Amino acid sequence: MQPIFLYIVSHNIHTSPTYQDFKNMASYISMDTLYYLLHEVHHVSELFQHERFSEFDAESVNLFLDSAKTFGDSALFPYIKEMDEKPVHFKDGKVIIHPQMGHVIKQAGEMGVIGSAFDYEMGGMQMPHTIANAGYYIMEAANNHAIGYIELIAGAAGLIATFGSEELKETYIPNMLTGVWGGTMCLTEPQAGSSLSDITTTAYPQPDGTYRIKGQKIWISAGDHEYVDNVIHLLLARIEGAPAGTKGISLFVVPKKRIEENGSLAGNDVVTFADFQKLGQRGYATTHLVFGDKEDCHGYLVGKAHHGLKYMFQMMNGARIAVGRQASAIACAAYHASLQYANERPQGRRLSNTGDKDLQQDQTLIINHPDVRRMLFLQKAIWEGSLSLILEASKYHDLENVLEGEERERAHLLLEMLTPMVKTYPAEAGRVSVSNGLQVLGGMGFSAETILQQYYRDIRIMAIYEGTTGIQSLDLLGRKATIKRGKAMKLLMGEIMQSIQAALTFSELKPYAKILGDNLKRNQEILEFLMPFAMKGQYERFLSDATLYMEFLSTVVVAWQWLKMATAAKEALVKGDTTYTKAFYESKIHTMKFYYKYEVPKTIGLAQSLMDNEVLTLLGETELIH
Amino acid sequence: MQPIFLYIVSHNIHTSPTYQDFKNMASYISMDTLYYLLHEVHHVSELFQHERFSEFDAESVNLFLDSAKTFGDSALFPYIKEMDEKPVHFKDGKVIIHPQMGHVIKQAGEMGVIGSAFDYEMGGMQMPHTIANAGYYIMEAANNHAIGYIELIAGAAGLIATFGSEELKETYIPNMLTGVWGGTMCLTEPQAGSSLSDITTTAYPQPDGTYRIKGQKIWISAGDHEYVDNVIHLLLARIEGAPAGTKGISLFVVPKKRIEENGSLAGNDVVTFADFQKLGQRGYATTHLVFGDKEDCHGYLVGKAHHGLKYMFQMMNGARIAVGRQASAIACAAYHASLQYANERPQGRRLSNTGDKDLQQDQTLIINHPDVRRMLFLQKAIWEGSLSLILEASKYHDLENVLEGEERERAHLLLEMLTPMVKTYPAEAGRVSVSNGLQVLGGMGFSAETILQQYYRDIRIMAIYEGTTGIQSLDLLGRKATIKRGKAMKLLMGEIMQSIQAALTFSELKPYAKILGDNLKRNQEILEFLMPFAMKGQYERFLSDATLYMEFLSTVVVAWQWLKMATAAKEALVKGDTTYTKAFYESKIHTMKFYYKYEVPKTIGLAQSLMDNEVLTLLGETELIH
Repeated sequence: MQPIFLYIVSHNIHTSPTYQDFKNMASYISMDTLYYLLHEVHHVSELFQHERFSEFDAESVNLFLDSAKTFGDSALFPYIKEMDEKPVHFKDGKVIIHPQMGHVIKQAGEMGVIGSAFDYEMGGMQMPHTIANAGYYIMEAANNHAIGYIELIAGAAGLIATFGSEELKETYIPNMLTGVWGGTMCLTEPQAGSSLSDITTTAYPQPDGTYRIKGQKIWISAGDHEYVDNVIHLLLARIEGAPAGTKGISLFVVPKKRIEENGSLAGNDVVTFADFQKLGQRGYATTHLVFGDKEDCHGYLVGKAHHGLKYMFQMMNGARIAVGRQASAIACAAYHASLQYANERPQGRRLSNTGDKDLQQDQTLIINHPDVRRMLFLQKAIWEGSLSLILEASKYHDLENVLEGEERERAHLLLEMLTPMVKTYPAEAGRVSVSNGLQVLGGMGFSAETILQQYYRDIRIMAIYEGTTGIQSLDLLGRKATIKRGKAMKLLMGEIMQSIQAALTFSELKPYAKILGDNLKRNQEILEFLMPFAMKGQYERFLSDATLYMEFLSTVVVAWQWLKMATAAKEALVKGDTTYTKAFYESKIHTMKFYYKYEVPKTIGLAQSLMDNEVLTLLGETELIH
Repeated sequence: MQPIFLYIVSHNIHTSPTYQDFKNMASYISMDTLYYLLHEVHHVSELFQHERFSEFDAESVNLFLDSAKTFGDSALFPYIKEMDEKPVHFKDGKVIIHPQMGHVIKQAGEMGVIGSAFDYEMGGMQMPHTIANAGYYIMEAANNHAIGYIELIAGAAGLIATFGSEELKETYIPNMLTGVWGGTMCLTEPQAGSSLSDITTTAYPQPDGTYRIKGQKIWISAGDHEYVDNVIHLLLARIEGAPAGTKGISLFVVPKKRIEENGSLAGNDVVTFADFQKLGQRGYATTHLVFGDKEDCHGYLVGKAHHGLKYMFQMMNGARIAVGRQASAIACAAYHASLQYANERPQGRRLSNTGDKDLQQDQTLIINHPDVRRMLFLQKAIWEGSLSLILEASKYHDLENVLEGEERERAHLLLEMLTPMVKTYPAEAGRVSVSNGLQVLGGMGFSAETILQQYYRDIRIMAIYEGTTGIQSLDLLGRKATIKRGKAMKLLMGEIMQSIQAALTFSELKPYAKILGDNLKRNQEILEFLMPFAMKGQYERFLSDATLYMEFLSTVVVAWQWLKMATAAKEALVKGDTTYTKAFYESKIHTMKFYYKYEVPKTIGLAQSLMDNEVLTLLGETELIH
């Protein structure tokens, strides 16, 4: 047998997709797959039976998503590469962002995107989060730098809507939902990153019931720019004399400009000190803000004093789902870019059954090489699997908002259980997926000319935003797995069992249903091994491999999503459903098999590591790193 | 139990290591570990018994390595970040590289680094590759952008030295080894990246025995710059009328400037057309060269016509080891940067046995958190494990050069067997390791201010250079595993068995020796599963999961290296050897255990995927990607 391929990889710079091609193609998502997941896998229409969502139907949902796609095609995707190449920068005291953002924020306000999930009475569209997230997903796949500006307005306005006084709501929300004003979350300080207990920004009470704010906040996304008239900061601070730790933290509205009695805007002593340069998401501003340097920064308490962190945490599920959604959307866009390249680039020849290659033949497209197909299938399995998981969690979020009593608690606990995985799986597996996508392009993937190298940088932050993977993993194992004596975990296992039962009705799916069942048992074994450490008070030991447990359980829940997707496809094929082509349904089943062959076996090694008795990473019990 | 950490990760921008700190610290490698590996694990002194290396001893080796370290500290490491921030660019027809390179190339020439492994008679130091590679490793850990310029000179001169005529040697080698002239390898063309069969650059024979060259080459590293007086290109081309495919390719020396009879330099019609901008290694020029646009590009045949690819391949082991070495060196530098940060950055508090945190305590250093320790140990396990593998292969390379007959073949086959793994493991696991290193820094790792984000970009090319991971994997399974009916594989298994036997003499090491033995059996099972496909002529099926086999077997060979390292440490502890501290030896044993707990179990899932009967990635047998 001859060596089939030769060394030194590179690709044709003349036939490769260039920026112009990307702009013209606007291929960054499969809308068919998104519709399929919403309607045939997650049955979003079930939500419309509830009063809150009664004005929606499948048609209006698709119209909304189509408009998001049109917005993405015209206003977002054509600028993604330019936003990276001409990054945000700080000049003469101003944060300069890409001028297209002026148009994007204005149009998002006009389309109602910012207020999509808000109540009608707030000026919102009262849309289910499941649909709103699908819309955001499209826009983020088109441009992951631009949409953060929009989402943060929604997030900040959401905190005011949920916990603020009527006066705060009336004063701020209307101009935020229309994109006239911006919004941020101000949490991080130099000495307090992961450890919010240690924040020191102070709020001094005034006789009129307002506060004067003094402190610095770093890494404030969308903290300042010229395309909004005002920026409304939702800021965590300690009221003077408040108790130490997280129990002394309060939440404030601190506008960049105060609203005077006559409605005009006046400076509020909020100064932008710097903009941070970053590895990725370079079109998304990351600022350093100084509050009250001249003792004239007014803040307005949201809700009750000392309840700030609780409020912030109630918003956190949404924020964490949003990070997972962004990561998955980047992986989705990267897949489409890789797929396009693989379908256009000729290189090498297929292996014949003699092991020789026929040099008289033209070179074959690289998509025909098994290893390239493997990398593309992995990308597909990860973005579609993680998107399905995001929609699953979003639906529980919606159900929590419309159900009552026991059913509401059930939805709440399932959402709590899934959230750290919804945040982490797309960030971690998505990064691997994008790296595979770059590899599909060979040397061309490393060239600044193509978009894959940008996605590789952009997605890297997702394992850090809103709680690192390590912290999400402590949350998963240390809190979520133990809530109400494991009730949330039992509910999740019950949901997965239902999907297994449904899959078992199709003989083609039986082997995979069985593998998933084996993994539920494996999960039980792992928990039975680890829980006694918690019971004995050995918390560091209990949680020392939480990150491995995260990888284990999130691989299992994505396997669950793939079994659901394959089952829905099988049902459609059996029924002769022609909503999508036969090839479409079969590709879902095929990709499920791929996930079970290539990804699910990783759970075996992870389980072995997790149930290993050796303790190697605890301080004091182990050698120092030398 | 309370939530222990809170969300939003970031770090203190004021106390973090800055560029200045990095410059002052010059901490990018553990010289102790390098010495330990060379002397106590790989017994490099065994080489000095051979005539070729008889002038070396341990002392002279360490002196050479110390001088490489001093060079790294003073001339290389202080410029690594600046070379990224002020990248190579093309201006007014010239390739502008960092001015420090002028000094680096000159000093490397004066130190003899370029000719370190060359024969004395060529003006070299006749150093074992094992030592030369250790020296390169230090310099690459200090600055992975700069050293490529040096290595390529050595590589190009090496081809002339091995296959060129006396005239070519005399004309070119002296000025190359002293760094007065540069060198490149010109292989890639736009339509011929991985598939060298398809190159079209043509050499037209002239009556005087020289050739006129015409064609374009892309992605030529170090292709042009102002700090050498001439650039000597080693170029693959097809002599007019040569047979199709790889059998019609010849190797030529093509200087940028011809050497006139009076010794002066004259233009040779080699034009630099562009410099490519890249994700990483931005200080390393990547050029597009046009040869013979004015029909006046003279080339000189190296060796025999049509033997060019064979010659290039004989150099390829070295080039592939060099890529693995660079990847491992980046991972090494990244580890030291992460370790430093983890030892300086306070954040959060340790978990107490009640599950609460004591806010009266100061924040703890992040190195005390188990998940951070886990990430650091993973980094350590990967860079040290891969370095050990590189030295193992280098020693076989040296033995091949000094032994005869059966013993020589043995060394040759072991080198052949290991080479694709030596290239690929550091590139693939190294990337994961650097990503973990970035994660240790949290949000700070994403900031352009710190070096981790640069290493994350730099290392990405290593899985692509000199044959992608996919191509290395085809080589490993399709060629190396089958050479001489599996003789190379049997030799490798024999070597590993010897290490297992040595480890079994220590009770503490027995469990790990047993695990490694289990993996040898697992390897046998996989090969017995896959080989019948090759025998039946089903080559695409045989090789479709070669990349998984690469991951499997390279994890096993690195486990072998760790067992060797731990055995040597155990022997030193038992003997009371005080060359290094007790803590140093114990940390080697500890890191071996870490590798066996956290990395080796992955082989179980990989084996399961490899022995799965489902075929999902072959064209025609599977659904198209939809």
